[in-house]
Amino acid sequence: MKPPLTIGLLGLGNIGQGVKTLLDENDALLQRRLGRRIQLKSALVRSLDREVASTVRLTTNPQDILNDPEIDVVVEVMGGEEPARAYITQAIQQGKFVVTANKEVISKHKKALFNLAIQHQVDVFYEAAVGGGIPLIRTLKIGLAANRIESVVGILNGTTNYILTKMTEEKMGYADAVAQAQALGFAEADPSMDVSGLDTAYKLSILASVAFNADVGVSDFSYQGIDQLEQVDIGYAHELGYAIKLVATGRRLADDRLVFGVSPTLIATTHPLASVRNEYNAIYVVGNAVGESMLMGRGAGSSPTASAIVSDIIDIAFNTQRVPSARNLDNGFGSVGLVPDAAKSSQWYMRLVVDDAAGMLAHIGGVFDAHQVSIAQLIQKEKPPHQAELVVVTHEATVAQRDQLHRALASQSGVTGVVACWAVGI
Amino acid sequence: MKPPLTIGLLGLGNIGQGVKTLLDENDALLQRRLGRRIQLKSALVRSLDREVASTVRLTTNPQDILNDPEIDVVVEVMGGEEPARAYITQAIQQGKFVVTANKEVISKHKKALFNLAIQHQVDVFYEAAVGGGIPLIRTLKIGLAANRIESVVGILNGTTNYILTKMTEEKMGYADAVAQAQALGFAEADPSMDVSGLDTAYKLSILASVAFNADVGVSDFSYQGIDQLEQVDIGYAHELGYAIKLVATGRRLADDRLVFGVSPTLIATTHPLASVRNEYNAIYVVGNAVGESMLMGRGAGSSPTASAIVSDIIDIAFNTQRVPSARNLDNGFGSVGLVPDAAKSSQWYMRLVVDDAAGMLAHIGGVFDAHQVSIAQLIQKEKPPHQAELVVVTHEATVAQRDQLHRALASQSGVTGVVACWAVGI
Repeated sequence: MKPPLTIGLLGLGNIGQGVKTLLDENDALLQRRLGRRIQLKSALVRSLDREVASTVRLTTNPQDILNDPEIDVVVEVMGGEEPARAYITQAIQQGKFVVTANKEVISKHKKALFNLAIQHQVDVFYEAAVGGGIPLIRTLKIGLAANRIESVVGILNGTTNYILTKMTEEKMGYADAVAQAQALGFAEADPSMDVSGLDTAYKLSILASVAFNADVGVSDFSYQGIDQLEQVDIGYAHELGYAIKLVATGRRLADDRLVFGVSPTLIATTHPLASVRNEYNAIYVVGNAVGESMLMGRGAGSSPTASAIVSDIIDIAFNTQRVPSARNLDNGFGSVGLVPDAAKSSQWYMRLVVDDAAGMLAHIGGVFDAHQVSIAQLIQKEKPPHQAELVVVTHEATVAQRDQLHRALASQSGVTGVVACWAVGI
Repeated sequence: MKPPLTIGLLGLGNIGQGVKTLLDENDALLQRRLGRRIQLKSALVRSLDREVASTVRLTTNPQDILNDPEIDVVVEVMGGEEPARAYITQAIQQGKFVVTANKEVISKHKKALFNLAIQHQVDVFYEAAVGGGIPLIRTLKIGLAANRIESVVGILNGTTNYILTKMTEEKMGYADAVAQAQALGFAEADPSMDVSGLDTAYKLSILASVAFNADVGVSDFSYQGIDQLEQVDIGYAHELGYAIKLVATGRRLADDRLVFGVSPTLIATTHPLASVRNEYNAIYVVGNAVGESMLMGRGAGSSPTASAIVSDIIDIAFNTQRVPSARNLDNGFGSVGLVPDAAKSSQWYMRLVVDDAAGMLAHIGGVFDAHQVSIAQLIQKEKPPHQAELVVVTHEATVAQRDQLHRALASQSGVTGVVACWAVGI
């Protein structure tokens, strides 16, 4: 029997407990496969006054883990930027392999951390930071390693996908759906990180490095959440043959420039991503050799996240020589040509509230024509007593064109407002 | 720059050419990521009278590759059992890492080859043998390594899925759909390996070892193909809310016994597998930590297969120490308790042709009752001039029950035949 792989856990909350449980449950299976034990030696906690399994040493002092020469792998599941980043940095400097679920730290500090890891000859694994239990990073870095990735389009936030599913299938209002997600533990008491799109944006910036070797942060592209989305638009989208999902997109254009963005997006109901329901995540990848492929799985919850973390630990345990593979550590980030927001192109869904007056439709049509944005689909509905809703899906137009059109439409007499405007298609 | 990884290719047909093309196309990308070149040195061909790229040495003598001390990795893309098995064996004995797309060889000889590989301290990679470009093996072995796998249910043959898609969406007859698949290169001139279910069975037996550590061959479970499937049943299935797919199933029961099988299966149209179209493959995996997850991608064609092979090569190239990870080499296969065919349980779809006589429905219903198989759904259709078709979906029943019922129904006066009988649900 080879010597055990010894683990120190930073954080013993929901996810930390999930990791402990999974290691315990699969102990025999892992010993058989690995020919060695994975031993959870100690865990950093906020306070010591709690019930614990006797085999794990609890401590409130991070140095008990970071400075313990017996510990091979530091698993960081505290969340938040600091002190997590500082602890990870110190662990690398001490020559420890690191496994983290921390999307914020990896998104913001990947370049510095990866360089440090290469310098100190250790690996940093972060499978759990994106897509919950779905082995996205590995699939892009190894399973599809032969491919030049052309695009990644994903549903990367389980909370918002759960909310959108309830709004779609049970016609729940936004606030009710959020409350239900909170009751079931899918949403935090303060859901703003999820519903604002920021969580998805962090994950997309990590995928940008994994898929495109691009070092971009959340300030390098625009992101929108679902907090402005209304039930009525989900209904109209359905009528037009679309589902609305919060979609992260990374795409390489023919000229090698890259486009990134996060926004609620109308997806044709026939597309596989449209049928990803509840707290599931999915990613749709196009590679130059493999063509289109999709991975789907649970994107939230302690058990799927623990699945990703423990799989990372196992990957390290297989590596009995402690030679870092550096598979996940791109340190020579390529120069990135980003497409500016205004030049991004898409079809658009717009909902206008207008006076129900003779000639209004022709008038509005004229405004679209004047901005050279053509209309692909249109629904007109009465909005009693004296108004109408016009729901339009345009053909392809840039964000700049869309914004000009939007302003022009809003300033027409008889137009109460352009009350919704979302991207269509992926 | 590290020394190059040198490759010898056994076979330079469709897939071999695909590997060469992909290595050429991604040369710069791979050098950047790996810090070393992947050099295709020589290829075994049937005869030398063909145009070739000048950088690859062609040979008709396998020993020029198997005995070449410069060659690190032997890539076998000849197909068929012999001499591929013999060449792979020799390559392992010479201390070379092996990458193969050969489902038949891995299915039949995995135990011997994996043991030999461990003995000679090399790795055998076979990602391309199952699921085309989808990194299934890696996902099960590494990405989901933390999980005890409960079930794998998959569409593993692109040819038959293409044929079934045409029969479903364009109401093509079986023969026409096969002809179209042949015309497009999705089916061989002799499609029997695919349509008989044997190809899927080989792949399932490989998944059995990857997911369940079980050494089973295609003679250890029953498999059926799509060659007995009629257009009319696809129509009735649709009416009842199902799509028909050729499904491979591996499942662990609560008592730890395993069930394997390949058969055309009615899948609820709401299930993600039901929407896998054309030559795509997909696998639906349930793990004890990750829950349900699905992978989908192209299951056939030289480019997706080359994607899997070259990804295997890259995995080896990352491993600059040439220490085998043995991640894919289960040599301590567990003892397997297989559920015998007769005890397998499922819902069943049956189509009967009966005389259109008074009391017939009650009579047939009585036969179901007598065999304690209850009816979940029923459609009765006229079959002019004097007959009727009864389409029944039963509740759960064992194969033994089904077979007894089948015989009893067929022997009733007024029953022309039980003309179709397929499993329902996954």
